[in-house]
Amino acid sequence: MPRTAGIVLVGNEILSGKIEDQNAAYLCRELRHLGVEVRRIVVIPDEVDVIAREVGLASATFDVVFTSGGVGPTHDDVTIEGVARAMGVAVVRHPALVAILEHYYGTSLNEANLKMAEVPQGTELLTHETVRFPTILMRNVYILPGVPEIFRRKFDALRERFRDDPIHLKNVFVRIGEGALAEHLNALLRDFPALALGSYPEFSNPDYRVKVTLESRDQSYVEAALAKLLDRLPADAVVRVGA
Amino acid sequence: MPRTAGIVLVGNEILSGKIEDQNAAYLCRELRHLGVEVRRIVVIPDEVDVIAREVGLASATFDVVFTSGGVGPTHDDVTIEGVARAMGVAVVRHPALVAILEHYYGTSLNEANLKMAEVPQGTELLTHETVRFPTILMRNVYILPGVPEIFRRKFDALRERFRDDPIHLKNVFVRIGEGALAEHLNALLRDFPALALGSYPEFSNPDYRVKVTLESRDQSYVEAALAKLLDRLPADAVVRVGA
Repeated sequence: MPRTAGIVLVGNEILSGKIEDQNAAYLCRELRHLGVEVRRIVVIPDEVDVIAREVGLASATFDVVFTSGGVGPTHDDVTIEGVARAMGVAVVRHPALVAILEHYYGTSLNEANLKMAEVPQGTELLTHETVRFPTILMRNVYILPGVPEIFRRKFDALRERFRDDPIHLKNVFVRIGEGALAEHLNALLRDFPALALGSYPEFSNPDYRVKVTLESRDQSYVEAALAKLLDRLPADAVVRVGA
Repeated sequence: MPRTAGIVLVGNEILSGKIEDQNAAYLCRELRHLGVEVRRIVVIPDEVDVIAREVGLASATFDVVFTSGGVGPTHDDVTIEGVARAMGVAVVRHPALVAILEHYYGTSLNEANLKMAEVPQGTELLTHETVRFPTILMRNVYILPGVPEIFRRKFDALRERFRDDPIHLKNVFVRIGEGALAEHLNALLRDFPALALGSYPEFSNPDYRVKVTLESRDQSYVEAALAKLLDRLPADAVVRVGA
């Protein structure tokens, strides 16, 4: 089961502020629900050597990697070439993808369209009835398109592959500031060193001042930590506790 | 003048899908208008060694670097320590920041709050009347907070530092698909190899099928490239040209 994931977004249009990426945030939320920890997101330009370096690093570091973007038929679509270079393999034309493109384009199929049949050598194709074009999996790297609707449809078809033990979360909303809160959090971490503990101040929320998040894959551990924190905090500091 | 920039977002809460970052997209748009090219965005967890590695790499690679997040008083605020480690310097308490905190907190100032007076040794403080707390500049690394309102206010106070020659952009909206378009773009790049040329398909827009972007710091170059492209494309392919 994959425990960690990296995300590589390929696209000059994100870096130049022309569009705002939606795919990374979607993937972070979905993977978290599935029990997978995203450890790194990187946004890079449409350049083969940069893609090769980042994908190679992510593939070696994390259990699974997702790329988004750079898979169309034009000159600036170079993700396939970048992934192939990362893996030290050639780019080849896949007969099954050629057949799909021939069926789709008929007599208007040209060389540019055929670029979409290119894959890193050794690729696995993942086919589902809900997506027209198979998803390309090269070792642990899922190559997904940048268009958000298609990105989501493709990920949703694959999602059960990524299900792992859930990560349990408790939120504690408090009306004291981070400065007063810090000693309580430090003490909690001494008792629960394996706890993932976050502290998020709100500056314009009349309801609470800080949201504290407690997380673990071990449900009894997070519940024991929660009890300890509530016990430590001044009674009037807590606004509410949420799941 | 800075030509290139890197962005390092620090925050478990982004990677775990709890919040969606707004700061990178803001910075990409603003820096582009100022003539600065963002070359890389990376989102990493609140971990000193990871921050040190990413900030060190970005600082050595780009003219300027911006970090966002991890600068509060709690245990998970470790950006200062990460930047210091990246630069091989100590973390020190800055007397000017201590004075500001003493003024602000008065008798309720505690050790946790004083953490916000810590900076990497050798830091420069940038003070503006529009921001309460100075911005920390360590060599070419601007250390900014994650809270979007404060992030923007701090960046806006600094923005004229980053103004460079503008990047000129022309958009061409076409009603042909990328497959038919590709040969024209390839030909254009043979004549204008220094052109930054992008091709962005739209799958659900009734108005056009692809937006083509032409960019350069040389205005006459981008205008000559635009004329050449319009000359090459079939007359009925172009929906409109925009700035």
